[in-house]
Amino acid sequence: MLNVIKIGGNVIDNEQALKSFLVDFSAIRGFKMLVHGGGQLSTKLSEMLDIQAQMIDGRRVTDAETLKVVTMVYAGWINKSIVAQLYANGCTALGLSGADANTIPAVKRNPLPIDYGFVGDISPARVNVGFLRSVMEQGAVPVFSAITHDTKGTLLNSNADTVASSLAIAMSHITPTRLIFCFEKKGVLSNLDDDSSVIPEITRDMYAEYKVQGIISGGMIPKVDNAFKAIDSGVKEVLIKHATAINTGGGTTIK
Amino acid sequence: MLNVIKIGGNVIDNEQALKSFLVDFSAIRGFKMLVHGGGQLSTKLSEMLDIQAQMIDGRRVTDAETLKVVTMVYAGWINKSIVAQLYANGCTALGLSGADANTIPAVKRNPLPIDYGFVGDISPARVNVGFLRSVMEQGAVPVFSAITHDTKGTLLNSNADTVASSLAIAMSHITPTRLIFCFEKKGVLSNLDDDSSVIPEITRDMYAEYKVQGIISGGMIPKVDNAFKAIDSGVKEVLIKHATAINTGGGTTIK
Repeated sequence: MLNVIKIGGNVIDNEQALKSFLVDFSAIRGFKMLVHGGGQLSTKLSEMLDIQAQMIDGRRVTDAETLKVVTMVYAGWINKSIVAQLYANGCTALGLSGADANTIPAVKRNPLPIDYGFVGDISPARVNVGFLRSVMEQGAVPVFSAITHDTKGTLLNSNADTVASSLAIAMSHITPTRLIFCFEKKGVLSNLDDDSSVIPEITRDMYAEYKVQGIISGGMIPKVDNAFKAIDSGVKEVLIKHATAINTGGGTTIK
Repeated sequence: MLNVIKIGGNVIDNEQALKSFLVDFSAIRGFKMLVHGGGQLSTKLSEMLDIQAQMIDGRRVTDAETLKVVTMVYAGWINKSIVAQLYANGCTALGLSGADANTIPAVKRNPLPIDYGFVGDISPARVNVGFLRSVMEQGAVPVFSAITHDTKGTLLNSNADTVASSLAIAMSHITPTRLIFCFEKKGVLSNLDDDSSVIPEITRDMYAEYKVQGIISGGMIPKVDNAFKAIDSGVKEVLIKHATAINTGGGTTIK
């Protein structure tokens, strides 16, 4: 089973949590891939450089200057730091953006009705599965930032959850694949104030119901949407769980 | 013949020159690798972030903050921008730091007598030749920044000329290899004020003489030293030439 694992920005921002996660990740046997989010460093760097954050409906617009910052931070510092740490743990990693070996070609999002700037949408069918298989067969573990490209020379900023689910969907056509979203909670919670209220399993019917009741809301909705899309597209299993629990049970299984 | 080509910071800093170089580079047939220097962006970024440059004997010290900046700029923005542009030119590239797939393990330079900080020295014998061969056989062109690692979790800043010569030496053990240093001059000049005074060929005896006479001096010395080291270690040919001339004649051949 290939494990495609995504870690969120909260883990990236906590040096100890990241270190501990990378030890656990290194211990996973068999084929695996890592996708990392960005964390606060790019926001901090933008502020230090006086780049004004443009927001539309609570979403950041990736203008040319912001694209430079996120590429430096995600594909540069964070990606290479993770790769170096993994090697020290005995895990030979290969840091990638979607531009590298054209692993993840993307399409710049239509500026109408809302222009989010240099944001890339991904089609799993275009992922360079052959190259990734070959890299893994060479014993290297792909580690992705969420920077992609439009194949015409322009880098793009993509959503890390979508990068992870797209990679998992693409790889599921050649090998059984599990997708794990790791973050700072133990799973999808039925009560946000109670960290132990993990919903062990969510079916599509339950999901519809939870949304109506407002139990699943906000940032969790795109994550669970991505999870269902992955299941519908051939991924064997999707788990949403705490970053400290990748090698143990628990979490929420999407079915 | 494998071509290992290094472009300097002056080319990186000039958008049009870089674009034009990348078109020429894409047109080279057969196996090839690119190593790129840094340019002024990291200095500019350091200034904007109020990171004081520490210099010893005219050489910059890579402290922890500077390491972060050069990793962001070299391995992040510059590397990924080049990779995206190459793909647009029909050249599938794979951006690498020396940490990626442990392609270039390095050793942190001894802090005595002078502590240059996070600077990595490279031994060509440790280059991961097998991985690079496999990548090229897959049709991807390795594109290196000069960021390496100590294999214990720490990234290091290496000299881009040395990265290029180390890669060429390492690869020369498995395939005939040519090393080309591209920069903003037409070759090694006998008169720095006369851009047409290119020395077509330099042997070791001539080099000794030129150094005594002060004809070859300053930053050209480590470049020519690297060139001779490469020739002595198995590289078939080393050329020093203008970045606009990689597919044409001219330049200086080191014999």
